[in-house]
Amino acid sequence: MSEDKEQRREAKHKASMQKQKAKVDARIEEASTERGVAVLVTGNGKGKSSSAFGMVLRALGYGQKVGVVQFIKGEQLSGEEIFLRDHLPQVDFYQMGTGFTWNTQDRSGDIAAARATWEKALPMLQDPSYDLVVLDELTYMIAYDYLPEQDIIDAIANRPVEQSVVITGRGGGSALQEVVDTVSEVKDVKHAFRAGIKARRGVDF
Amino acid sequence: MSEDKEQRREAKHKASMQKQKAKVDARIEEASTERGVAVLVTGNGKGKSSSAFGMVLRALGYGQKVGVVQFIKGEQLSGEEIFLRDHLPQVDFYQMGTGFTWNTQDRSGDIAAARATWEKALPMLQDPSYDLVVLDELTYMIAYDYLPEQDIIDAIANRPVEQSVVITGRGGGSALQEVVDTVSEVKDVKHAFRAGIKARRGVDF
Repeated sequence: MSEDKEQRREAKHKASMQKQKAKVDARIEEASTERGVAVLVTGNGKGKSSSAFGMVLRALGYGQKVGVVQFIKGEQLSGEEIFLRDHLPQVDFYQMGTGFTWNTQDRSGDIAAARATWEKALPMLQDPSYDLVVLDELTYMIAYDYLPEQDIIDAIANRPVEQSVVITGRGGGSALQEVVDTVSEVKDVKHAFRAGIKARRGVDF
Repeated sequence: MSEDKEQRREAKHKASMQKQKAKVDARIEEASTERGVAVLVTGNGKGKSSSAFGMVLRALGYGQKVGVVQFIKGEQLSGEEIFLRDHLPQVDFYQMGTGFTWNTQDRSGDIAAARATWEKALPMLQDPSYDLVVLDELTYMIAYDYLPEQDIIDAIANRPVEQSVVITGRGGGSALQEVVDTVSEVKDVKHAFRAGIKARRGVDF
């Protein structure tokens, strides 16, 4: 590239970045409400639970109090759960621990387990000492009608104002999308699994 | 619900779950290749970097060796970075540390910093002792033409066969999507920011 062309490119880049900065600054200026946020990470793609666990790490960086309740998951601990158990005793961690519903094939048993798990989650959603509560795979409890949707919506809506909540799982329904502040939908564009590659320890579980 | 109706529902649930289990089992049977996977977490929505950090936690649960290289991010450490620095010294962690490009507005400076950061990432991508390498926000280096796309593609394609890589950031381009095994696109369905809610410590940064 000639020096002249490079200089024009530099100038163009600077102008474009100035414009972008003005936009970002304006939006930051506008955002004025300070409170905990409720986030739903949904969709069919890979990365939903790991996103929630990344936020756990983020909260712990500031010494915040974190609770993690996992619905469905269990039977075998995956890597992040082993790490939580072995190295992060400060995180209150509870697992439904009945495995996936297509393994149990037992609706009444699943419902009882779901209710027992919700009994662990609800007090966290009422306790202002928790800065962040993760409800991993909660959406399936609504989809399978294992827990009353309205109870979940109410608990999220009425939680302490400074508390943030992260909910993960496919689906979730419009009432849940309505009550949360942020919804990210993780789309499955491409997956190693479909190319015959086995789920990988440390990445997939 | 009548007992009869409830029984029918149980039976229907069981049949549906059996069908689902057969499908899942068949897919697990088919997947036969065991190797490290390359994952791209892209899209405009919230949760990309936190997803990568969740996978860091997952890998650490198995005692794996992890490297994290962050492009763009810097100036102020966010929560997960503070946690990494203070509590996870076993993770090799490097940050470009020049802040966002719309703050620096200096193309040549950005390019020099990008190259220096890539010099930290490349040896990790050539070292089979790393189980997982995170390249956070790498996509912008391609989009802004700060790093040669082909060098990045080659490094990912030629990395040790057992090594997994997670790349985050908006965009990334078709060549990058081609070379990785899994692509998740995080769609921004709803964001607290647009409702005037400030970015939240422990969730957003």
